[in-house]
Amino acid sequence: MTQRNLDRLFNPKSIAMIGASATPVKWGFIVLLNILKEGFTGPVYPVNPKLETILGVPCYPSLQAIPGPVDCAVITTPALTVSALIDECGRKGVGNVVVITSGFSETGSEGTLMEREIVEKARGYGMNLVGPNTMGVFSAGCNLHALMPPVVPLHGGISMFSQSGNVGVQMLYWGNNKGIGFEKFVSSGNEGDLKCEDYLTYFAGDTDTKVILGYMEGLDPGSHLYRVARRVSREKPVLIFKGGRTQTGGTAAASHSGAMAVSSRVLRAAFRQAGIIEIEDSQGLVDCAKAFSACPIPRGNRVGILTRGGGWGVITADACEENGLVIPRLSDTLMERLNRVLPPYWSHGNPVDMAAVITSEPYLECLKALAGWDEVDSVIALGGFIQGAMDFNTTVEEGPTELKETVAFAREFAKEYTAQDDVVLEETRRLSEETGKPIIVVTLGDYDNHRSGLMNHRVVSYPTPERAVRALKRMVDYRRFLDSPA
Amino acid sequence: MTQRNLDRLFNPKSIAMIGASATPVKWGFIVLLNILKEGFTGPVYPVNPKLETILGVPCYPSLQAIPGPVDCAVITTPALTVSALIDECGRKGVGNVVVITSGFSETGSEGTLMEREIVEKARGYGMNLVGPNTMGVFSAGCNLHALMPPVVPLHGGISMFSQSGNVGVQMLYWGNNKGIGFEKFVSSGNEGDLKCEDYLTYFAGDTDTKVILGYMEGLDPGSHLYRVARRVSREKPVLIFKGGRTQTGGTAAASHSGAMAVSSRVLRAAFRQAGIIEIEDSQGLVDCAKAFSACPIPRGNRVGILTRGGGWGVITADACEENGLVIPRLSDTLMERLNRVLPPYWSHGNPVDMAAVITSEPYLECLKALAGWDEVDSVIALGGFIQGAMDFNTTVEEGPTELKETVAFAREFAKEYTAQDDVVLEETRRLSEETGKPIIVVTLGDYDNHRSGLMNHRVVSYPTPERAVRALKRMVDYRRFLDSPA
Repeated sequence: MTQRNLDRLFNPKSIAMIGASATPVKWGFIVLLNILKEGFTGPVYPVNPKLETILGVPCYPSLQAIPGPVDCAVITTPALTVSALIDECGRKGVGNVVVITSGFSETGSEGTLMEREIVEKARGYGMNLVGPNTMGVFSAGCNLHALMPPVVPLHGGISMFSQSGNVGVQMLYWGNNKGIGFEKFVSSGNEGDLKCEDYLTYFAGDTDTKVILGYMEGLDPGSHLYRVARRVSREKPVLIFKGGRTQTGGTAAASHSGAMAVSSRVLRAAFRQAGIIEIEDSQGLVDCAKAFSACPIPRGNRVGILTRGGGWGVITADACEENGLVIPRLSDTLMERLNRVLPPYWSHGNPVDMAAVITSEPYLECLKALAGWDEVDSVIALGGFIQGAMDFNTTVEEGPTELKETVAFAREFAKEYTAQDDVVLEETRRLSEETGKPIIVVTLGDYDNHRSGLMNHRVVSYPTPERAVRALKRMVDYRRFLDSPA
Repeated sequence: MTQRNLDRLFNPKSIAMIGASATPVKWGFIVLLNILKEGFTGPVYPVNPKLETILGVPCYPSLQAIPGPVDCAVITTPALTVSALIDECGRKGVGNVVVITSGFSETGSEGTLMEREIVEKARGYGMNLVGPNTMGVFSAGCNLHALMPPVVPLHGGISMFSQSGNVGVQMLYWGNNKGIGFEKFVSSGNEGDLKCEDYLTYFAGDTDTKVILGYMEGLDPGSHLYRVARRVSREKPVLIFKGGRTQTGGTAAASHSGAMAVSSRVLRAAFRQAGIIEIEDSQGLVDCAKAFSACPIPRGNRVGILTRGGGWGVITADACEENGLVIPRLSDTLMERLNRVLPPYWSHGNPVDMAAVITSEPYLECLKALAGWDEVDSVIALGGFIQGAMDFNTTVEEGPTELKETVAFAREFAKEYTAQDDVVLEETRRLSEETGKPIIVVTLGDYDNHRSGLMNHRVVSYPTPERAVRALKRMVDYRRFLDSPA
C-alpha cells in the first residue's frame, strides 16, 4: 500500500475557496465564513468571477488569477462543474482538493461515473481528493475550519475521520458541550479517492494526535484498514464506532454510503485482532473519547469503588462485574486506615461506602488511600463533586421572617459547600497523576459541571456509574491489547 | 396478604416533626425546613422541649402537648430514643411514623434488635412505620416534603419507592434536570415494617399515580411483590431497577440493605411473568420514566425512522434491530407521497433519510406521513428540534467590517431559525395525540432543550438514538405483556 502525504491537506499554507458566495444560504458562503471568522493562519483566496470582494476579502475571478501558490482548494460549486475545476487545480499545482459538492456516487450510476472521472483526474495530477460529498476538514494547528456546519471545535488531542458527515459533526458539537477537544477532523464523504485508512495512517504519524476516533459504515474489500490499525494501535488508541452492524442498519448503510454489511461477530473479531477499540453506541463514542483523551490507561482490570451512598456502590459493583472488571477485597492494612477516617458503620469492604459522610476531607482521605492501594488499577469515585446537587434556589415569599431568612442562609450555605468542588477536583487530578491510575468521577448534576471538571481540572466524570464503567472497560481492553504479543 | 392503608401517610392532615432542631447542620433542622418552605397544606408541629419557636413556628415540648390530632410523625432523634417515642405516638393516636433516624439493622445485631422492638411496638399500635433509616416521604397533592436532602421534585404522574435513599433522591434530582414530575415518593429505608410491595399496592390504587417506579435490592423470601405486581401491571406500568444482580453487587447489597443476591436470569424471568418492566441501568431509569409518563404505549414493535442525516438513520436502524424492533419497508403509496416532498436523492426507504433537507416544513410533512402510516406503531424522529445546534455565539474582534457584520447577521439568522422549534414540537405533540402513537425525538444539544421540550410541549426527546430505542423497546415489551392472557 502507498502512503499518501496529507501534510498539506491538514496544514495548508494557503486556501482557495472555489464557489465562494455572498449569499448567506449557500454553502459557498457558510464555509468561507467559517474559514474567515476562525482566522486561518495563511492567505484565503475566494474564487468567484462575479464579485470583487466577499466578506471584506479580495475575490478572484479564477484559480489562475490568484497571485501566490495554493495548497488546498475547497470546492462547493455544482457537481457538473467539478471535473473542469480539477483540471484548473491541476494546472495551478494545487495538491489537495476538498470537494464538498454532493450529487456524485451517492445519487446513483450517473453520479458514480462523474465521481470516477474526477477521482481519476485528481490522481493523474497527484492530488489528494477529500470527498466528494464531504462536510469538510478541520485542523487545530493552523485554525483551518473548512466545515459546512457552523461548529467551532475545541482544541485537543483527538483526531477523527467519519464516513458520515452528520455523525462526525455531531461529535464535534458534543465535544463542545462536554469539553472534549479535537486536533484534526475529516468528513470522508464518498471516499472517491482518500479513504479512512489513509486518514488513519496520517493521524498515526501526526505527533499532535493522541487519540484516533472513527465512524465507519463500510470498507472496500481490499481495504488495508485492519492492517494499518494493528500497527497504529500499539502507538495510540484507535476507537471506532461501526454503523450498519445489522441487516436493517446494513441496508440503510448501503443506501447511505454504499457500504457492505458485515456481521457484528465478524466485525468484533476483526477489531479485536487489530487492537481497535469498538465503540458500542453513539454515547460511548463521546464517553470513550473523553476517557481516552484525559485518563492514563489502567495497568489492569482491578477497580476500587468509593461511594457516599450504598445503593450507588451496589449499582457500580454490578456494572463492573457485568463488564469483566474485578472489585478486590480490601486488605487489613487499608481497612485499618479507612477505619481511622470513617464512622464505625462504613461498609468495611469494596465498594468503600462512606455511609452518608458528605464532607470533603474524609472523602479525599479515602480517595488517597484507595488510589494508592497496590491491589487496584483504577478508582471510580462516586459523588466526587456536588455542584448542582443542592437545590436551594427556592425563595420563600410568604411565611414567618425567620423562615425566609433561613432559606436565604441555606442558599448561601449550599453555595459555600459546593465551592469545595475545585479543591476536590484538583486533588483528584493530582492523585491520578501521582499514582498513574485513572480516577473516574461519577456525579449528579447537569452537563455544565462535567464540562468544567474536564476543562478546568482535566478530571473525567459521568452522570451515571454505568457510563463510567463502560468507558473504563474499554481502557482495560486496550491495556490487554497492549500487553499481548505484537 | 393484608393491605395496609397508607392514605394518611401520603395525605396527612397534620404533621409532627419530632427532633425538630434550630441548628442548620442537623437533619431535624433540614427536614423541618423542607416541610415549611414548601408549604405543607396542614398544620406542622415541631417538637423540641428546649425551644419556644423554630423558624418562626410555635414549638411543642412533647407530642402530647400538641393541641390537635397528628396524622403523621417524622422522627430524627437518636436511635436509642425512638422506642419511647413510638409509645408516645401510640398514646397520641398517630397513625403513621417516618423514622429517618439511622443506626438500626443496617449497623449490626444490636441495631437489628432495636429495629425489631420499634416495629413490634408500632404494629401493636396499628401504626404504619416508614424506615427506619429512610430519607423520607414526598407527596405532591398536599405539598408534603418530609425529605432529608434539599430536593424539591417537580409535580407529575410518577410515584416511586426506593430501597436506596441516595438512588431515589438522585432520581428526583434528575427529574428536576429533565422535566420529569413526581406524584409520590418514598425512601423505604430498612423496611422494618412497610415494604416495597406495600407501597406498590398503595400506588396501584392511587388515581393520581400513572406510572410506578422502583429501585430494589432485595426481597424477603415470603414477599408478595411479584403477585402484587402482576395485578398492578395490567392497570399501570411498573418499572423496576434491581441492584445486586451480580455476585459483587449482591455482596455490596447485602452489606447495604441486607438483600439476598438473585441471579439476573431468575430475576428477569420473575419480572417478565409479573409484567414488571426491568430497567437495565440508572440512565434507563430516567429515560423510561420520561417515555412512560409522557408517551402513549405503542400498539406493536414496528418503527418508522425519520432522519435528516444518513449516518444517524443507520445507527438508529442498527439499534432497533438489536432491540427486536422492526423497520417495515415503505409502501408504494407512502413512497409517492414522500417523493412529492423530498428531493430526488432521498433514501426511498425506511429510515426516511431526508438527505440534508433542513427546513421545518418538509420535515413536518414527512413526520405526518410516517406517523399516519398504518404499518408503523411508533416513530423515531431525528433532528426534531435544533436549538443549541447552531454555534454562532462567536464574535469576530479583528478583520474586515464586512466580516464582523456578517457574523452578527449569522447569529441572528441562527436564532430565527431555531425559533421554529416551538412550532415543530407542538406539531409533533399534535401528531402523536392524533395517531395515538409515540413519536420520540432525538436531537443534538444540551439538557436544557430536552427539558423544555418535555415541560412546554410534552415531547419526549433524547440526545442519542440508542437511548430512544431502548426506551421504546421497554414500551413495546409492556404492550406485549398487556396483550398476553391474564
